Amino acid sequence: MERLETFKNKYPDRDYTITIVNPEYTSVCPMTGLPDYGTFTVNYVPDKKCLELKALKYYFLEFRDKGIFYEAVTNQILDDLVEACQPRSMEVVGAFTARGGITSTIKAVYKRA
Amino acid sequence: MERLETFKNKYPDRDYTITIVNPEYTSVCPMTGLPDYGTFTVNYVPDKKCLELKALKYYFLEFRDKGIFYEAVTNQILDDLVEACQPRSMEVVGAFTARGGITSTIKAVYKRA
Amino acid sequence: MERLETFKNKYPDRDYTITIVNPEYTSVCPMTGLPDYGTFTVNYVPDKKCLELKALKYYFLEFRDKGIFYEAVTNQILDDLVEACQPRSMEVVGAFTARGGITSTIKAVYKRA
Amino acid sequence: MERLETFKNKYPDRDYTITIVNPEYTSVCPMTGLPDYGTFTVNYVPDKKCLELKALKYYFLEFRDKGIFYEAVTNQILDDLVEACQPRSMEVVGAFTARGGITSTIKAVYKRA
Amino acid sequence: MERLETFKNKYPDRDYTITIVNPEYTSVCPMTGLPDYGTFTVNYVPDKKCLELKALKYYFLEFRDKGIFYEAVTNQILDDLVEACQPRSMEVVGAFTARGGITSTIKAVYKRA
Amino acid sequence: MERLETFKNKYPDRDYTITIVNPEYTSVCPMTGLPDYGTFTVNYVPDKKCLELKALKYYFLEFRDKGIFYEAVTNQILDDLVEACQPRSMEVVGAFTARGGITSTIKAVYKRA
Amino acid sequence: MERLETFKNKYPDRDYTITIVNPEYTSVCPMTGLPDYGTFTVNYVPDKKCLELKALKYYFLEFRDKGIFYEAVTNQILDDLVEACQPRSMEVVGAFTARGGITSTIKAVYKRA
Amino acid sequence: MERLETFKNKYPDRDYTITIVNPEYTSVCPMTGLPDYGTFTVNYVPDKKCLELKALKYYFLEFRDKGIFYEAVTNQILDDLVEACQPRSMEVVGAFTARGGITSTIKAVYKRA
Amino acid sequence: MERLETFKNKYPDRDYTITIVNPEYTSVCPMTGLPDYGTFTVNYVPDKKCLELKALKYYFLEFRDKGIFYEAVTNQILDDLVEACQPRSMEVVGAFTARGGITSTIKAVYKRA
Amino acid sequence: MERLETFKNKYPDRDYTITIVNPEYTSVCPMTGLPDYGTFTVNYVPDKKCLELKALKYYFLEFRDKGIFYEAVTNQILDDLVEACQPRSMEVVGAFTARGGITSTIKAVYKRA
Repeated sequence: MERLETFKNKYPDRDYTITIVNPEYTSVCPMTGLPDYGTFTVNYVPDKKCLELKALKYYFLEFRDKGIFYEAVTNQILDDLVEACQPRSMEVVGAFTARGGITSTIKAVYKRA
Repeated sequence: MERLETFKNKYPDRDYTITIVNPEYTSVCPMTGLPDYGTFTVNYVPDKKCLELKALKYYFLEFRDKGIFYEAVTNQILDDLVEACQPRSMEVVGAFTARGGITSTIKAVYKRA
Repeated sequence: MERLETFKNKYPDRDYTITIVNPEYTSVCPMTGLPDYGTFTVNYVPDKKCLELKALKYYFLEFRDKGIFYEAVTNQILDDLVEACQPRSMEVVGAFTARGGITSTIKAVYKRA
Repeated sequence: MERLETFKNKYPDRDYTITIVNPEYTSVCPMTGLPDYGTFTVNYVPDKKCLELKALKYYFLEFRDKGIFYEAVTNQILDDLVEACQPRSMEVVGAFTARGGITSTIKAVYKRA
Repeated sequence: MERLETFKNKYPDRDYTITIVNPEYTSVCPMTGLPDYGTFTVNYVPDKKCLELKALKYYFLEFRDKGIFYEAVTNQILDDLVEACQPRSMEVVGAFTARGGITSTIKAVYKRA
Repeated sequence: MERLETFKNKYPDRDYTITIVNPEYTSVCPMTGLPDYGTFTVNYVPDKKCLELKALKYYFLEFRDKGIFYEAVTNQILDDLVEACQPRSMEVVGAFTARGGITSTIKAVYKRA
Repeated sequence: MERLETFKNKYPDRDYTITIVNPEYTSVCPMTGLPDYGTFTVNYVPDKKCLELKALKYYFLEFRDKGIFYEAVTNQILDDLVEACQPRSMEVVGAFTARGGITSTIKAVYKRA
Repeated sequence: MERLETFKNKYPDRDYTITIVNPEYTSVCPMTGLPDYGTFTVNYVPDKKCLELKALKYYFLEFRDKGIFYEAVTNQILDDLVEACQPRSMEVVGAFTARGGITSTIKAVYKRA
Repeated sequence: MERLETFKNKYPDRDYTITIVNPEYTSVCPMTGLPDYGTFTVNYVPDKKCLELKALKYYFLEFRDKGIFYEAVTNQILDDLVEACQPRSMEVVGAFTARGGITSTIKAVYKRA
Repeated sequence: MERLETFKNKYPDRDYTITIVNPEYTSVCPMTGLPDYGTFTVNYVPDKKCLELKALKYYFLEFRDKGIFYEAVTNQILDDLVEACQPRSMEVVGAFTARGGITSTIKAVYKRA
């Protein structure tokens, strides 16, 4: 996987929220081999580190040729981003386009203990 | 009824939400024999099992020729899906198209005791 | 008044919500004699009885030639529907079209003691 | 029928267009006795006379208790309004709310020979 | 096929337009056996006969269990409706829901020679 | 100021909500002398008295030629309406059109002690 | 009336279009004395002169306390603006807010002979 | 390239229109190597052959890993589809997502001589 | 930095909310030197002082040529505005346009201890 | 001015249309010194050359600190782009944000003689 990068949060004394929306996600369905498309929304309260956007973009591009299910990719992205920037809290939502007339959205949340 | 299928939830340690929208529901009104149409939204927190989407699609198709009321179908779908995947919680919403100028929406919720 | 009708709730063990929207309400303003128009939304948790939709439609039609104020009709509909189906809770919202450039919406709620 | 009223067009040397929209039309279906609802749009180029809006409003109210079909009412309104204000041209569109899931719109046009 | 019915056009001296929208069309895909869904819009200038809406609704219902392609059904509906009411002109548009991420719309037009 | 009028609340035993929207507010900016425009939304739970809508409309018209700031007018309207109808609670929101590319909205709330 | 101002068109060799929208028009109804509100859209092809926007804004403000009908004000604005900037062509559209549930729009066009 | 397939047009005596929308197009920018995304709309009048949708879907998928410019891909798709189904006329529109804040849309048209 | 100005809050006894939206923010990206664009929303409960809008507008203009990151500018604006008007609470939201297909929104909140 | 760049049109035998939308235009008002904002839409049929998008982006950025009127900038952009790519035809539309409540849009068209 492409390395996520971070930069120092200059306002660590304040709980504030960063929301990032990537409407250009695509990967491959492991069962059919056909592409999946979706929009990922990441919402987090940074602690010491913020996610660098350009590296995040390249991170998302790594899924383009990967076979992965909706539930798996949403949870993995949450795990990867939490590990990279160690936020106070984070929510990841994957909203995928319709397949067979049915639309799926997965939402996973991390809250520091 | 068509058998619902499930697959193993790989992230059982985390409470996350799966939302599935099926805008192509149709059944038959038991009183008039005329078709009903609606959109079903299923929203659940999986435990050990996730609903497999293709089988879920075929499950919905089973209602196409069935005579059933709005309240009954919404509650039955909740019962069937809860039985199939044993979620931590689930919400089923059936939003039906207007009849006689009047629109109905039914929402039923399951929460594990 | 036209008699409201009910049918037996087959899922009395579960608190679920029924929402009914009637965008074709009309009555007569008692002061000007001119027609009023609006959309009524009824939202309730049934107990032993559900409101039958066709009878409900005819119930609404009874207001067509009646002179009644916005606040009165919204509260009366709540009273009538509560009396008819004895719900666990009910909310009635009447949203009326603009008169003199001003729009009014009335919301009344019943909760069983 | 309520008398339509007109006032003198002060700009007869110019072809200009007047558009009037009434979203509060209602009448009665001659077959079922149930109310119909719709929006009427009148679009005309006045000649010597313009339609007075208040009288036009009362004219529309006359249909409230009348049994009349969609095609008939749209054509009759065109005939009545043309007779009243003798325009250079006029278009009347009646857009009615759905019945049995099906929506109808009727458009009739008059052009002075 | 269910018989289409017509009623006499009372305004044959005027070219006017009738638009009918049916958002509740469904049939079966001849290749997959899975249901198709769509919205049909019929737009015509009547001559001596207008299409009766209730019979038209039942006509559309006849496709519910029929295996037929998008192009075929749109052209067949145009042929059937033209034969039934002999209009001066007619346009039929079938707009179908997405399959495999791809949406199709078919438009066919009849103009009396 | 134009006198606000009230009528007796016939349902004083129930806490219900009345929402009134006036999108046609205008006054004059005390600094520039230029007109301001906005939409006022009043939301209240009546006690013994309800606000009469026609008098309320004339009350709003009194601001047309008055020089008053956004914060002042929103708070004054809350004070005036509370004094007039002595509600259990009331919220007044003034949403004003953009000036210099910047839009302002003021929200003031009253809750009976 | 406030004086309209113009500035020199630097591209007189080209037919190009200038569209100006003023959503903050208000005047007074000559019959009821109550304010009218609307949006004016001016669309023109300049010849030697363009309308200066600040002066145009003050020109519109002059109608604030004036009693004038919809048809009259739309045509008068067209006449005034044509006289001021002598355009190759101009269209003025006044779209007024609903009164008694009915909305009016007036469109007048000038084309140099 | 994946082979496009066609099926026989059963209504060759009538000029009718088929519109196909694919919102899931993606390819690779030849300059940056980064993915491009867009929606393709194909609009054609068939002659003897219609485009088969499943093969068309696979045809579009072939661009996923291909480096190609907006203008080139739109014109190539038009050429390929025209060659495959020999239509009476065809229009292809590629609407691509923003890059550097700027959005591009390319439209190419074929008309049989 | 341009000096922010304030005026005396005339309703200090009441907790009310002022919302200000500026959709015309622009600054420069410190990494690429290219302009950034966004909408800033400021939402606060004033104590003794309110923010003067014209000075606030000039304050925002100071960022036009400044190189500053999304997180930094949102937090700095919160700090500057809190210092200027000493509110009971304040929320600042910066919603920036897409870069590389990815959109960012930053929300920072101040609450008086 | 930044140099516009072009690349060779590979489909010169076909009249096709390229539409480019830049919603991030800003310049300075020559009278007030305050920034203007707008969206530019360029629509052209290329002949031998197409506009290169990255250079076009830098071209637009050159207006950021320039004092120029709406009419002038729209016509100048048309002149510059026509000179750069010598198209068969081109249309440039500048839609600017509201000033003093009034919105302006300028549209200029070039057609090769």
